[in-house]
Amino acid sequence: MDFKTILQEVYNDLSQTEDKGQLASYIPELANINPDKFGIHFFSIDGIHYGMGDHQEKFSCQSIIKVLSLCLAFKTVGVRIWERVGVEPSGTPFNSLVQLEYEKGIPRNPFINAGAIVICDILISHLDKPKEEFLDFIRHIADNSEINCDSKIAISEKAHGYRNAALINMMKSFDNIENPIEEVLDFYYDICSIEMSCEELAKTFLLFANNGCIPSSNERIITTSQSKRINAIMQCCGFYDEAGEFSFKVGLPGKSGVGGGIVAIHPGKYSVAVWSPRLNKKGNSYKGILALEMLTTKSELSIF
Amino acid sequence: MDFKTILQEVYNDLSQTEDKGQLASYIPELANINPDKFGIHFFSIDGIHYGMGDHQEKFSCQSIIKVLSLCLAFKTVGVRIWERVGVEPSGTPFNSLVQLEYEKGIPRNPFINAGAIVICDILISHLDKPKEEFLDFIRHIADNSEINCDSKIAISEKAHGYRNAALINMMKSFDNIENPIEEVLDFYYDICSIEMSCEELAKTFLLFANNGCIPSSNERIITTSQSKRINAIMQCCGFYDEAGEFSFKVGLPGKSGVGGGIVAIHPGKYSVAVWSPRLNKKGNSYKGILALEMLTTKSELSIF
Amino acid sequence: MDFKTILQEVYNDLSQTEDKGQLASYIPELANINPDKFGIHFFSIDGIHYGMGDHQEKFSCQSIIKVLSLCLAFKTVGVRIWERVGVEPSGTPFNSLVQLEYEKGIPRNPFINAGAIVICDILISHLDKPKEEFLDFIRHIADNSEINCDSKIAISEKAHGYRNAALINMMKSFDNIENPIEEVLDFYYDICSIEMSCEELAKTFLLFANNGCIPSSNERIITTSQSKRINAIMQCCGFYDEAGEFSFKVGLPGKSGVGGGIVAIHPGKYSVAVWSPRLNKKGNSYKGILALEMLTTKSELSIF
Amino acid sequence: MDFKTILQEVYNDLSQTEDKGQLASYIPELANINPDKFGIHFFSIDGIHYGMGDHQEKFSCQSIIKVLSLCLAFKTVGVRIWERVGVEPSGTPFNSLVQLEYEKGIPRNPFINAGAIVICDILISHLDKPKEEFLDFIRHIADNSEINCDSKIAISEKAHGYRNAALINMMKSFDNIENPIEEVLDFYYDICSIEMSCEELAKTFLLFANNGCIPSSNERIITTSQSKRINAIMQCCGFYDEAGEFSFKVGLPGKSGVGGGIVAIHPGKYSVAVWSPRLNKKGNSYKGILALEMLTTKSELSIF
Repeated sequence: MDFKTILQEVYNDLSQTEDKGQLASYIPELANINPDKFGIHFFSIDGIHYGMGDHQEKFSCQSIIKVLSLCLAFKTVGVRIWERVGVEPSGTPFNSLVQLEYEKGIPRNPFINAGAIVICDILISHLDKPKEEFLDFIRHIADNSEINCDSKIAISEKAHGYRNAALINMMKSFDNIENPIEEVLDFYYDICSIEMSCEELAKTFLLFANNGCIPSSNERIITTSQSKRINAIMQCCGFYDEAGEFSFKVGLPGKSGVGGGIVAIHPGKYSVAVWSPRLNKKGNSYKGILALEMLTTKSELSIF
Repeated sequence: MDFKTILQEVYNDLSQTEDKGQLASYIPELANINPDKFGIHFFSIDGIHYGMGDHQEKFSCQSIIKVLSLCLAFKTVGVRIWERVGVEPSGTPFNSLVQLEYEKGIPRNPFINAGAIVICDILISHLDKPKEEFLDFIRHIADNSEINCDSKIAISEKAHGYRNAALINMMKSFDNIENPIEEVLDFYYDICSIEMSCEELAKTFLLFANNGCIPSSNERIITTSQSKRINAIMQCCGFYDEAGEFSFKVGLPGKSGVGGGIVAIHPGKYSVAVWSPRLNKKGNSYKGILALEMLTTKSELSIF
Repeated sequence: MDFKTILQEVYNDLSQTEDKGQLASYIPELANINPDKFGIHFFSIDGIHYGMGDHQEKFSCQSIIKVLSLCLAFKTVGVRIWERVGVEPSGTPFNSLVQLEYEKGIPRNPFINAGAIVICDILISHLDKPKEEFLDFIRHIADNSEINCDSKIAISEKAHGYRNAALINMMKSFDNIENPIEEVLDFYYDICSIEMSCEELAKTFLLFANNGCIPSSNERIITTSQSKRINAIMQCCGFYDEAGEFSFKVGLPGKSGVGGGIVAIHPGKYSVAVWSPRLNKKGNSYKGILALEMLTTKSELSIF
Repeated sequence: MDFKTILQEVYNDLSQTEDKGQLASYIPELANINPDKFGIHFFSIDGIHYGMGDHQEKFSCQSIIKVLSLCLAFKTVGVRIWERVGVEPSGTPFNSLVQLEYEKGIPRNPFINAGAIVICDILISHLDKPKEEFLDFIRHIADNSEINCDSKIAISEKAHGYRNAALINMMKSFDNIENPIEEVLDFYYDICSIEMSCEELAKTFLLFANNGCIPSSNERIITTSQSKRINAIMQCCGFYDEAGEFSFKVGLPGKSGVGGGIVAIHPGKYSVAVWSPRLNKKGNSYKGILALEMLTTKSELSIF
C-alpha cells in the first residue's frame, strides 16, 4: 500500500471519527478558530507530496515554531547554546517551576516554554532585527515569501502570559536572560504567532528528514549532526508531558502546537503535517495524534 | 568503512582514553570489580558479529535486565500493563518520590526503579516460579543455558536497598503492589543480579532490532508493535536523567546498568553491547557512552 | 465568668452542634469507635479540675503521645536530639517525602510521622525495655498504673502502615535510623495505641503548663527550658497542616491525634483535653478544635 | 533582676561577641550599611522604656513592615483577607513556588514575599493614595511624623526583584492579583524601604502587646481578636525558615527583616526591637536572634 492510499484512508477514517478534544481556551483569539478544520499533508524527500482537507489553510504554528527557532540558534551559536538550555525531557508540568529553581534557571530543554524563551533571548543577542531575520530564515527554507506573524494572536497571548512572565523573571534572577524581559517576551509571542499551512510546514520541516539540507535545492542549512540532534530532541521532548506516549504510539520525532498542528519527521524518508484544532488533555491535537498513529501503524514504518 | 573497522577504531581509541568515571559504590559487591574491564560486542541481524576486549566476560546486568522483564510482562499481560506503569520520561531523580505521590503510585515508566518493581509484581502475579521462568525466558532467547543470577550481588544490594523499600511501600500505600513486599523485592534483586557478557547481551537484544523475532531461528517472541514500543521506551527513558543526552549524542534506543554495561539497538540493523565499570555522574558507563557516541558518529548511522 | 461555667457552656453548645467531621477511616479498628463520643476535661495547675461528657472514657491517644515520647527523649538525650530532627513547621503534607529527601533524611520536627519515628529510634537506643519503660514513664507522671497499649489498634495500624514504612526506609537510606526498621515501627505503633481518657491526658500534660514539674508533687520531670521548648514546638507543629490555623484561632500550644483527641496548654495556668472522634479535612477533631476556640474566646485568655 | 539590668547585660555581652553573620548582599544599597551597628530598645506597655547603642538610628525595616501592612489590611477588610492568603507556616524556601502552584496562587501566609505582595494588592484596592495613607497610618501609631520611605533602597531592590516579579506573575495567572503588576510591586518596594529606629519600632509595635490599643492614648487600632491573631501569625511565620527555631529559642512572637532588624512582642507586657545588620544563613540578624534569646533566658519569661 503506498503512502497516498494510506493517507487517504487515514483522512477518511478520521473525518468520520468523533473528536473528543477541546479548543485551547487560554488564548482568546485561538478560541475563535473553526474547531472542525482538519488537514494533512505528506512530503517525501524525493519531492512527492499530497494533502487532504484543509491542508492549504494557514493556522497558528505556536510551539511548532520552537523547532525552527532552535534550528536558527543552533546554526548561529553552535554547541554553546547547551550552556543555557538542556536536552532532557521535563517530567510533569507540575514540576516546571521547581525544576527551574532546582537547576539554577537552566530549562530542561528548548521546547518547554522556559527553554524556548531562552532560545529567543539568544537570537535577540545575535541578530540585528530578530523578528525580520527569523521570518526571512523561514521564508527562505519554505521558499515562500508569504509567511507572516499574526499580531492579533501575539497581543492576545501576551495579555494572558503571566505564567511565561513568571518563568522569564525566574530565569533572569539566575542570570540566564541577557536582554530586557519585555523585548524577549515580545519576540517570543511574535514568532509563536507565525501562521503556516500543513503544506508549508511539511515542506519546511523536510530539512530535518534530509540531514539538514533542503532537498529541492540541496542547500545545506545546518550540519548533519545538528539535524540529527534536533530530531533527537523532538523525539524526547516534542509533546509536553506526552512525549513518551507519542514516541510509544507514533514512533517518530515530532512537535505539536496549541494551534492544533503537529509535524512529524521520518529521517531519510518524509515529513508530515496535520492540523485539527481540538486538543487532548495534554494539550496536543486529538485527531492529529490519532492520524499519525494510524499512519505509522498502516505503513508499518517508524524509526523503531 | 565497515562496522568491524569502526568497532576496532572505537576500541583502540578508548583503550587509551583516560576514564573519568567512578565505580558504583552503593553496592559493595559491585565495588570489587576490576574497574579497567572494557569490552564491546556488535551483532547484526544477519548473524555477523564480533567483539573486542572483555566482551566474553560476564558482568552484572543490573538495570539492563529491566528491558527483558518488561518484554516478558508485555508479552504475558499485553496492554493492560500500562494501567500500572506509564511511558513518560521521569525528569530529575529529585522528583521521583514526589511524582509517585502526585501521580497516585503510578511510576512514570518501567525503567525507573519504581516502575521496574511494578513489572516484577506483575510477573509474580502471572508466573508460577517467577525466578526460574524468567531465567528460562532469557536462556531461550539467548540460546544459552549458562545464564544465572549472582546471589551475592542480590543479597548485597538488598541489604542496602532502603530507597527501593521506600518506593515499594509508597506504591503499596496506593494499592499498586499486589504481592508481599519482601517477595517482590527478592525477585527484583534476583533478576538485577543476572550476569551476562557483552556477546550474550548483544545476541539477546537482537530481537528488538528485528521487530520482536529472534533472527537466527525466526521465532517470534513479541509482536512487531510490542517490539517498537519497547524501543520507544528505551529511547525516552533508558538512561535515568541522561536519556535526552544519550538520544542527543548517540541517537539509538538503549539501556544502561550500574554494573557498567550498556546495550543499544539500531532497529532493522544491529544491536551492540559495551561494558566498562566506571560510571559518569548520571550513573551511566563513562566509556560506554563515549563508545556508542563514536560508533554512531563514525558510521554516520542513527535512527535520526 | 469562671472556667467551670465557660466549660459547661462550651460543652452544652457543642453537644447540640452538627458534627461536620468524618471518622478516621485508614485504621479499621479506629473506625469502630462510636463517633458521637464527646468529652472535655480541664485541669488547672492549682489542682482544680472538672470535666463533662465522656471525659473519663479511654480512647486511642495516637499522635498526642508524640509529645510524651519527645519529652522522654529530650530528658534522656538532651539537646543532641536536634541533630536528628528539626523544630520547623513542615508545610504541606504533599511535600513531606520530598522535604525528607531535600533535607537528607532529617525530619522537620518531632511531631510529623517521620520525626516521631526518629524519636522512637532514639528511645530504643537508650532504653533497655522501651515499651515498658515508656509506659512506666507515663504512668508515673499520670500517677496512674492503668495506662496501657491497645495491641489490636497497634496491629491494625501497622498492617496498613505502608507510608510510614516508606518514610522510615527513606530515613534509613540517609543513615538517620540506628535500629532495625521492624523494631522501630513496632515500638512506634505500640506507643501510638496507648489509651487515656481526657481526664488522664489533662492531668499528665499539666507538667508542660508548670515549667516541667508535676504540680501535685512538685517533682521535676524536665527542665524549665525543655518544657518551654516543647510548648514552642507544639505551638508551631502540633496540628499537621493546620498548626497556623490552630495558633490563629485558639492561640495555645497543643497536640491532636487521629483518635479525635486534642490536648492544649496555657503555660502557667492550665491544661485541657477534649475528645470527639470525627475529624475535619486536615485530620484534627472537628468539635475538638471548635471547643478550644470557644474556650479561649470566652475566657479572653490565650498566650497572645 | 529588672529588665533594664538584663538589657544592659545583653548589650554588653553581645558588644563583645564575634558576629558570625553576613551583610545582605542581594540589595546593593543595603550592603553599604556599617555592619557593626548594634542597637536595642525595650518598651513596656506601662510606658517605661530604654535603649542602648544605635537604638535611635533609623534603618531599613524591610520585612518587619509586613506586620503593619497586614495590620492595616486586616483592619480595613476584616476576615475576608483570609480568602486570598493563608495563615500556615511555609516550609522550606525551596518549596515556595511549588506550593504557590499546588495551592492555586494562594500564598501560605502574609509574611512570605508572595503573601506580603497580596496584602499590598488588597491595600491598593481599598486605599485612595496607598503609599501616603500607609505612611500616615504608621506615623499615627508611632506618634511621629518623621517616618519615611527611602526611595534609593526601593529602586535598588526593585531593580533586582526578578524573583518577586516571578511570584506576582504566578499569582496573577491564578487571578489572585487585582491591580497592575507594576503598581503593586512599586508599592511593595516603597513600604519595605520605610526607615525606623529601634525606639520607633518598639513603640509602634506596642499595640500588639496591648490587645490592639496604643497604650499611651488607649486608642484602639484593631480588635483584641485581630491583635492576638497577628501575634499568632508572627509566632508561626515571622522568621522565614527559622520560625520554629525562633519560637523554640526565644519563645515570643516576632518579625525580622533583611535590614538586620527584629521586633518581638510579649503580649500583655512589652515589645522590644533590636538591630544588627549581619544576617545568619536563614536571613535573620545574627546578633538580633542572640539578643532576644538571652533576654528571654535571663528574664525567664516567654509566652511558653
